[in-house]
Amino acid sequence: MSFPIICIFLLLSSFSHAAVQDFCVADYTVPDGPAGYACKKPVKVTVDDFVFSGLGIAGNTSNIIKAAVTPAFAAQFPGLNGLGISTARLDLAVGGVIPFHTHPGASEVLIVVQGTICAGFISSDNTVYLKSLKKGDIMVFPQGLLHFQVNAGGTPSLAFVSFSSPSPGLQLVDYALFKNDLSTDLIVATTFLDRAQVKKLKGVLGGTN
Amino acid sequence: MSFPIICIFLLLSSFSHAAVQDFCVADYTVPDGPAGYACKKPVKVTVDDFVFSGLGIAGNTSNIIKAAVTPAFAAQFPGLNGLGISTARLDLAVGGVIPFHTHPGASEVLIVVQGTICAGFISSDNTVYLKSLKKGDIMVFPQGLLHFQVNAGGTPSLAFVSFSSPSPGLQLVDYALFKNDLSTDLIVATTFLDRAQVKKLKGVLGGTN
Amino acid sequence: MSFPIICIFLLLSSFSHAAVQDFCVADYTVPDGPAGYACKKPVKVTVDDFVFSGLGIAGNTSNIIKAAVTPAFAAQFPGLNGLGISTARLDLAVGGVIPFHTHPGASEVLIVVQGTICAGFISSDNTVYLKSLKKGDIMVFPQGLLHFQVNAGGTPSLAFVSFSSPSPGLQLVDYALFKNDLSTDLIVATTFLDRAQVKKLKGVLGGTN
Amino acid sequence: MSFPIICIFLLLSSFSHAAVQDFCVADYTVPDGPAGYACKKPVKVTVDDFVFSGLGIAGNTSNIIKAAVTPAFAAQFPGLNGLGISTARLDLAVGGVIPFHTHPGASEVLIVVQGTICAGFISSDNTVYLKSLKKGDIMVFPQGLLHFQVNAGGTPSLAFVSFSSPSPGLQLVDYALFKNDLSTDLIVATTFLDRAQVKKLKGVLGGTN
Amino acid sequence: MSFPIICIFLLLSSFSHAAVQDFCVADYTVPDGPAGYACKKPVKVTVDDFVFSGLGIAGNTSNIIKAAVTPAFAAQFPGLNGLGISTARLDLAVGGVIPFHTHPGASEVLIVVQGTICAGFISSDNTVYLKSLKKGDIMVFPQGLLHFQVNAGGTPSLAFVSFSSPSPGLQLVDYALFKNDLSTDLIVATTFLDRAQVKKLKGVLGGTN
Amino acid sequence: MSFPIICIFLLLSSFSHAAVQDFCVADYTVPDGPAGYACKKPVKVTVDDFVFSGLGIAGNTSNIIKAAVTPAFAAQFPGLNGLGISTARLDLAVGGVIPFHTHPGASEVLIVVQGTICAGFISSDNTVYLKSLKKGDIMVFPQGLLHFQVNAGGTPSLAFVSFSSPSPGLQLVDYALFKNDLSTDLIVATTFLDRAQVKKLKGVLGGTN
Repeated sequence: MSFPIICIFLLLSSFSHAAVQDFCVADYTVPDGPAGYACKKPVKVTVDDFVFSGLGIAGNTSNIIKAAVTPAFAAQFPGLNGLGISTARLDLAVGGVIPFHTHPGASEVLIVVQGTICAGFISSDNTVYLKSLKKGDIMVFPQGLLHFQVNAGGTPSLAFVSFSSPSPGLQLVDYALFKNDLSTDLIVATTFLDRAQVKKLKGVLGGTN
Repeated sequence: MSFPIICIFLLLSSFSHAAVQDFCVADYTVPDGPAGYACKKPVKVTVDDFVFSGLGIAGNTSNIIKAAVTPAFAAQFPGLNGLGISTARLDLAVGGVIPFHTHPGASEVLIVVQGTICAGFISSDNTVYLKSLKKGDIMVFPQGLLHFQVNAGGTPSLAFVSFSSPSPGLQLVDYALFKNDLSTDLIVATTFLDRAQVKKLKGVLGGTN
Repeated sequence: MSFPIICIFLLLSSFSHAAVQDFCVADYTVPDGPAGYACKKPVKVTVDDFVFSGLGIAGNTSNIIKAAVTPAFAAQFPGLNGLGISTARLDLAVGGVIPFHTHPGASEVLIVVQGTICAGFISSDNTVYLKSLKKGDIMVFPQGLLHFQVNAGGTPSLAFVSFSSPSPGLQLVDYALFKNDLSTDLIVATTFLDRAQVKKLKGVLGGTN
Repeated sequence: MSFPIICIFLLLSSFSHAAVQDFCVADYTVPDGPAGYACKKPVKVTVDDFVFSGLGIAGNTSNIIKAAVTPAFAAQFPGLNGLGISTARLDLAVGGVIPFHTHPGASEVLIVVQGTICAGFISSDNTVYLKSLKKGDIMVFPQGLLHFQVNAGGTPSLAFVSFSSPSPGLQLVDYALFKNDLSTDLIVATTFLDRAQVKKLKGVLGGTN
Repeated sequence: MSFPIICIFLLLSSFSHAAVQDFCVADYTVPDGPAGYACKKPVKVTVDDFVFSGLGIAGNTSNIIKAAVTPAFAAQFPGLNGLGISTARLDLAVGGVIPFHTHPGASEVLIVVQGTICAGFISSDNTVYLKSLKKGDIMVFPQGLLHFQVNAGGTPSLAFVSFSSPSPGLQLVDYALFKNDLSTDLIVATTFLDRAQVKKLKGVLGGTN
Repeated sequence: MSFPIICIFLLLSSFSHAAVQDFCVADYTVPDGPAGYACKKPVKVTVDDFVFSGLGIAGNTSNIIKAAVTPAFAAQFPGLNGLGISTARLDLAVGGVIPFHTHPGASEVLIVVQGTICAGFISSDNTVYLKSLKKGDIMVFPQGLLHFQVNAGGTPSLAFVSFSSPSPGLQLVDYALFKNDLSTDLIVATTFLDRAQVKKLKGVLGGTN
């Protein structure tokens, strides 16, 4: 019976290297590349690399948007690296809003777990796709398009969102325009907004120039 | 002021065609292709193509596995077509089990919304990655690997899963082996299982030969 | 010598089918799919399917933005279909502006052929990448990020842009917000803009509600 | 026991659609797209769509190159469609040659099953990678690079090649230059070849002009 | 005549860097990433990186499955890295079996070189696709689906398989279930198998718990 | 008002990592991978990484082909790394020629900015697609196919080309055949060219053997 055993070991060892590519748990200590973070050595990988508990706690919604986004992207959740998917938690207090934003490299699916959410996206030909979503409804937001979510009820809302990329990114239009040192002149020229409006929002969001 | 208006229309019309590729809502009435279903004409698309309510209702768990999987894949949810993502609802009654299975073309992320779930996957080198997940925990299952979920508590569990493909597929090992007309001889030869065991499970699952 | 000749014909015929996949010239008359338009039969394809003359004529810049974008995307240029690339012409009169916009599914490279252009993009962490470009300079705008171009000189500017997709799409923030029937209440809630500002821009761009 | 049975049917039916995307057997009767041929309805698919017997017969090597290439690409083997792989049989008589060629969209792996083959490819920086391969040796030819195979022994050679695309294409440099109506003037101008050489090879391969 | 010579050198040098991306020969000494192993410096690459001789020797079939799989994946064959293809040798003694398994990230094409092989795969809807293959026949197994190969004749069989990935992985169902420390209780719960059957196979394959 | 401010910082910091994947500016000092060069740390990235001025200067056409190709590929232009696009400048003096060549991994779009260019490509079935292009015309060359460009007028021509890859590569047929140490015997055997012709061109281009 020793014969088979030996062979099975040989057979296995011949594949142990290939297993490297079953997954690629992120190693944040070395440079990353266009496809994602470098891979941790399989021998150092544990089940905890594939489990993330950060979405169990409600985000802090005591802020200007009365909302919070808690990401579980490859940058926070190493097991996702290279697997083409990620997720996040959305907390919307009463009156909470996730302002107009895009995910530069990913499509999004939203699942309402609690409350009512009014969500919408705009297509390249400026058509509005708008819907009021109740518990259990899901909505998809195609890649890169402008979209938003608003709490449409009198109670807090909770939703989980998933993305078609381990690092979908998040670009909030207001933050991109008003939360940096882009000059008021350039913003006025490239958005048609009034100078006073730009100055006001730079004040609220901490932008300069 | 008529000058600008005219031009804006020209400008827009020159892009109205490009919008075709913002999304590709599934048209189930014509042949599909390797990348997914054909696209519905944008003029016929409405917001309801991007919203799915089927995950709001608990699946029927009065069955042999005391569990139910309710998919929202491109085949059920046309707005997902071509967008690289899909989702499903998992209901696990007390003692409920999603038996060993794979998703041939996708990685999976599971979010526990209610109860406690014991989940695990096996890598190509036969290492076991096993974890007991509580409400709010998420776990990722790398593409194509064998995995399972079991209700680990005394109350029903609810989870939502997302996939890195609009059509991830689902292959249950038991159903693949015992729920068709694959001959008992071949199953015995290719699984090392005892003939009696194969016959018994074919009986339970409705397989023949 | 007839032997070889015969064989060469056989050899060739055995590959004539494979040529189908050298290219996939768009057939706009049948449904498209997630990967692009259906393919014209190779026998009907001519060199003119691979040549586009529309970028030789300056776009009409007598409009509100004093600029014009003339696309050569798969929707206008059938030979690009499925080939992962497209292009467009940018004409910027004195004072011309391509307002803040994104291309939902593509990265962009801009080549300045005439004049001086001030271009910039904003990253997900709200950093501004801004540069004044002269004739011959090129700049890359990473996929899906907000960016703009402004004529920075006293003479008209001309640029050609290329995209990493045959159908990159174009979403102008102002048009997405103000050139449709999205309600003023929702815009105010999701942009922090003042109601008067929203009403004013809806007036200029032809939006309602 | 009827309860479980019912549910299992429900469970299965809820996934029967998803199976559409397990594979996409080519339907040659409708237009194809950039990702490949349209999919045959799963109910019409049989195991014979996934099996191809054409590589069991030696190709006819009684020709000018004393060699034959028998393809099993998506155009000949419908089950390959959309699966990212294809294969072909190479027969090389004594003195047989597969002249310099490229596969525009695929990398190639060659497995020598009989005889000895001298194979080589050239990189973009004009480095030559050349090797004499014996039975059981394999060699990889990176995507799109010029390469060739020559029977290096005194007996016929047989090899199987696989490609990283279901439709890799095959472009023989000699056929591309001399087996069509491209004018001798243009060929001379774009190849540095002597006019007499061009005329001679056009004669051999049946080119005109 | 010195003028041209100089320029050609300039021209070449301006492209020498670009050649980096013709191929990416695996460097196993530094961390890999989601797209594969890091690239060896082109100057250190030789033709031997693109040639592999390990498939010329028959695998040792004196084992429990009377079969052997000899891989030429990116982990064994550095030249394949990043090229989307790999291959392996299958040796099946009389009565030899490659038990039910999947390749998590790849489709497979099998070419029978010697003997007769009975091969089959199961689709997501549990349909069986089964065929007896003779010398020269090829069969394709779509990505991630359960499949097997059995020697169907009275003589040893030899086959070569190719995969649509440089690191397709290999997951044998029996090894995944019975060749590790996954508890018997969990296996029974997630496979419907009898406890005695599980214990028996753990004993044969060296599993614990 | 301190509450909101605090939260916005938290919110931003939670995304600062995700921004890593907005772009991947090439770091040439560490090993690259199949998907491209490693990424520079975002904090070290400046706008100059996204701007390239090398295409503003005409290439030196005082050479054997009376033409010059100036690349802006990922190897020269770090900001392109991983973004699926690149570009180059073509200068064609009177009588200038870009000889037959391929880009192993990319499709190309050419834009004529000055002069007249005769361009053509050959498909896998040896069909010629030939066109005389004037200022403003664009032409697409599908991935991996043999093509060429010739100055068709009495004045210098200028064109910009874009590619569907950050590292498209460039393989000139004449250089691949005659500008290295590939033996004259092998070239004769694999091209059908006369020995004298091969020797002559090796002499012109600096090849040996």
